[in-house]
Amino acid sequence: MNLNLIEVKVMTKQEAVPAVSNILMEAGAQGVQIDDHKLEDVAVISYFPDDADIKSILLKIRAKVVNLTAYGLNPAPAKVTARSLSDAKWATTWEKYYHAERVTRFLTIVPAWEDYENKETNQIIIKLNPGMAFGTGTHPTTKMAMQALETILRGNETVFDVGTGSGVLAVTSRKLGAGDIFAWDNDKNAVESAKKNIALNMGMQNIQVGINSLLEEIIGTADVIVANMLAEVLLPLVPQAADHLKKGGKFITAGIYFDKLDDMIDELNQHGFVINQVMSVDNWRSIIATKGEN
Amino acid sequence: MNLNLIEVKVMTKQEAVPAVSNILMEAGAQGVQIDDHKLEDVAVISYFPDDADIKSILLKIRAKVVNLTAYGLNPAPAKVTARSLSDAKWATTWEKYYHAERVTRFLTIVPAWEDYENKETNQIIIKLNPGMAFGTGTHPTTKMAMQALETILRGNETVFDVGTGSGVLAVTSRKLGAGDIFAWDNDKNAVESAKKNIALNMGMQNIQVGINSLLEEIIGTADVIVANMLAEVLLPLVPQAADHLKKGGKFITAGIYFDKLDDMIDELNQHGFVINQVMSVDNWRSIIATKGEN
Repeated sequence: MNLNLIEVKVMTKQEAVPAVSNILMEAGAQGVQIDDHKLEDVAVISYFPDDADIKSILLKIRAKVVNLTAYGLNPAPAKVTARSLSDAKWATTWEKYYHAERVTRFLTIVPAWEDYENKETNQIIIKLNPGMAFGTGTHPTTKMAMQALETILRGNETVFDVGTGSGVLAVTSRKLGAGDIFAWDNDKNAVESAKKNIALNMGMQNIQVGINSLLEEIIGTADVIVANMLAEVLLPLVPQAADHLKKGGKFITAGIYFDKLDDMIDELNQHGFVINQVMSVDNWRSIIATKGEN
Repeated sequence: MNLNLIEVKVMTKQEAVPAVSNILMEAGAQGVQIDDHKLEDVAVISYFPDDADIKSILLKIRAKVVNLTAYGLNPAPAKVTARSLSDAKWATTWEKYYHAERVTRFLTIVPAWEDYENKETNQIIIKLNPGMAFGTGTHPTTKMAMQALETILRGNETVFDVGTGSGVLAVTSRKLGAGDIFAWDNDKNAVESAKKNIALNMGMQNIQVGINSLLEEIIGTADVIVANMLAEVLLPLVPQAADHLKKGGKFITAGIYFDKLDDMIDELNQHGFVINQVMSVDNWRSIIATKGEN
């Protein structure tokens, strides 16, 4: 791991966090963490190697963050800052932010280097390398998607994980007993990250990972489709999911900001889905839906 | 089991189902089942021994169901009917309505007499006798309470189960690794039912069951309080829960009809609770909250 790093911090609003995180990862960040302990603005913090062309990277990030208004997201104050981190500081930062986190009674996310001892029988460990967008592993939208998987999986399902990112939901599905799992992302960094995280875990032989834009190039049907992305990206996925789910199949969508919930439910209903459950944490919503008759 | 029975059916609205079920159990029903497969009205079906004074029981049930309007619940069409069931018909009815149901990947409710074979490793079986209000075991509010327990329990917690009914949430807590569990109900039939259901399951030695009105007579504090009751009953429980939870303790409330959600959240906030998550199935809401600093 490169220990000479530049920390880039974006001050923004809660609603823009997934989009800003995505911008940072696309700019080549080696990790993203979210500090939303304050009530108002959220700090999205990322790390770049110190041999990166940080000046042009910052320009690019600033432009993209400000441009989020075009997608109906408020990124204010949209303040982007950078500073060098010494090895010592860097190590402390990791320790402070990344530690084992029990998401549910059964599911626990553990950083790659941490020796974690199960406190309870049947605890399931998901190893993740925070160097690769670990932050998403403890974001409310990811937690709700994991909860939803724990609620609806029964064993041996074929699962499509759309926009896999760090691969955390593909690994979770496998650990919960799903059968064949296919994970896609349109970003090659995400695909690399997912592959590495999948390799960190045991018994992952059934997970296929590849580059794909939503489900456009995909043939075949699944029992379960899970997608943790912003509603703006989830909306065009709905008709594709209807085409790629078996009758009675489940569609889990997370990453929905509260003001887009009604749009998502309308779109799901229009494509023959029945809403089973809605989950709410802070301003985020997650939906479990079932593909109906048509 | 008494096989000569009278079936009493109440046609009502979804929102009145828990209240109507309660009315039937209080009238001495040996079981309640809910048929809500149709979109409009719901049938709440219960069984009474054929030596019961069914005429006066029906009068009492009718009066109470109609009176639900006084509690802001719409019981329409509030139609109460009765018919005798032959042994054969009765047996078929049980088979039709009561079968093993997987509530989550891990939690499965199994009728007392059914031999159920685990399909997946780590599946947890909760045995219940449908003769005692089994119907609630698969009602959305119970399912959400079970999901919530699965989400927040970590192991060895002290749990208070308020309004335990069939005891399903006490048993679930124990099976998920909670430590000392105390279950109360103000109805002695419910307490008997809970005791019998607890006895049906293995490893239940830490569950104490008793008669109590909410938490009025209770001394001591819990890590987790779970209560699956109508909002009308949950509201007066909130200050008691604040007094009986350790700092950082979790309060799970289920059985909230959607139009009472804001009242519940206001009451929780006013007593120092932070809302962690809201779950929605049909018109029902469930809340996970944490006791804050106050």
